[in-house]
Amino acid sequence: MDASRLEQQIDFLREIDRLKQVQRKSFVSGARRFENSAEHSWHVALMALVLSEHAAPPGVNVGRVIQMLLVHDLVEIDAGDTLLYAEADALKLQKERELVAAERLFGLLPAPEGVALRTLWEEFEARESAEAKFAAAIDRLQPLLLNFMSEGAAWRRYAVTSADVRAKNCHIADASPELWAFAERLIDEAVRRGYLKHAI
Amino acid sequence: MDASRLEQQIDFLREIDRLKQVQRKSFVSGARRFENSAEHSWHVALMALVLSEHAAPPGVNVGRVIQMLLVHDLVEIDAGDTLLYAEADALKLQKERELVAAERLFGLLPAPEGVALRTLWEEFEARESAEAKFAAAIDRLQPLLLNFMSEGAAWRRYAVTSADVRAKNCHIADASPELWAFAERLIDEAVRRGYLKHAI
Repeated sequence: MDASRLEQQIDFLREIDRLKQVQRKSFVSGARRFENSAEHSWHVALMALVLSEHAAPPGVNVGRVIQMLLVHDLVEIDAGDTLLYAEADALKLQKERELVAAERLFGLLPAPEGVALRTLWEEFEARESAEAKFAAAIDRLQPLLLNFMSEGAAWRRYAVTSADVRAKNCHIADASPELWAFAERLIDEAVRRGYLKHAI
Repeated sequence: MDASRLEQQIDFLREIDRLKQVQRKSFVSGARRFENSAEHSWHVALMALVLSEHAAPPGVNVGRVIQMLLVHDLVEIDAGDTLLYAEADALKLQKERELVAAERLFGLLPAPEGVALRTLWEEFEARESAEAKFAAAIDRLQPLLLNFMSEGAAWRRYAVTSADVRAKNCHIADASPELWAFAERLIDEAVRRGYLKHAI
């Protein structure tokens, strides 16, 4: 065993501790604080495990989906989190920052693991495989759920409307018509309760 | 598809959001706050993925280890977190609270998934399978790393000595002699730097 391999792995695992300080735009339910990207990553990984039966077509490799969700936000350590509903320019700039971040962070690992994790992240970003589509669907469903649970606190703060929410999240249907049908019911109910402003 | 199955799954996934409010006894590195059990669960799941080559015997099912680590602390939602170095009585009481918590929490899910997740948790607690031993090793290694990174802040706060740390963590060696050798070097270095009080 090459001792320096373990040292490199540990350096990476120390570095990623910083994901716990990346603030997202959703509130933790029942708490007066924003969620961070580390706890979000845990939540979506477990959601994928529990909801995997709703993936369409069935037979998605849930182990791979979970691994993807564990690494999907790591680049935010350097690049930060950008609001899903931000302007196109801001989202494009975010993508560029994330590429630089991926280079640095996955580069901390010995080559085989670094490449393996980076490949997971790239697969997630490309959203082409069934696993990536399902991971992306879960990644979108989770903040919907949190926003609903916090009575739309984040939606109101960022002046998001039901039309915005539908436009940005409808790709959930590509991975799971069932979960998208659920999300639509949630959006309707959020409008009805006044958590979310109605717009067509 | 039985709509109520999905509703039950969602109820469970809403409920577990509370794990983000369970405070652990380690500090997040570079932050002035304690780690919570949700972000800890994410960190150990990713550690297991990166460090799986160090499991002994080799060939541990890392997918199962990850699933185990994603659920291993859920019972703390009801039972809270108890210091590893607490008195035996406190740890016994904690075990009893955790059993009641498991009954309630996994019972929120439809039976097949509820049983599957509970089985993962029980396997973790029993620490008999190679996967459970490796998961437990990672679960112990992670706070060592955080405590080292925060210059022993939590060790000092709870008056923990190097003898305590060795006694409570030496079972890391059952799952990975290599990771335990690393942990021992970390403990020695923590003593040398004054992060941890020396005791035999």
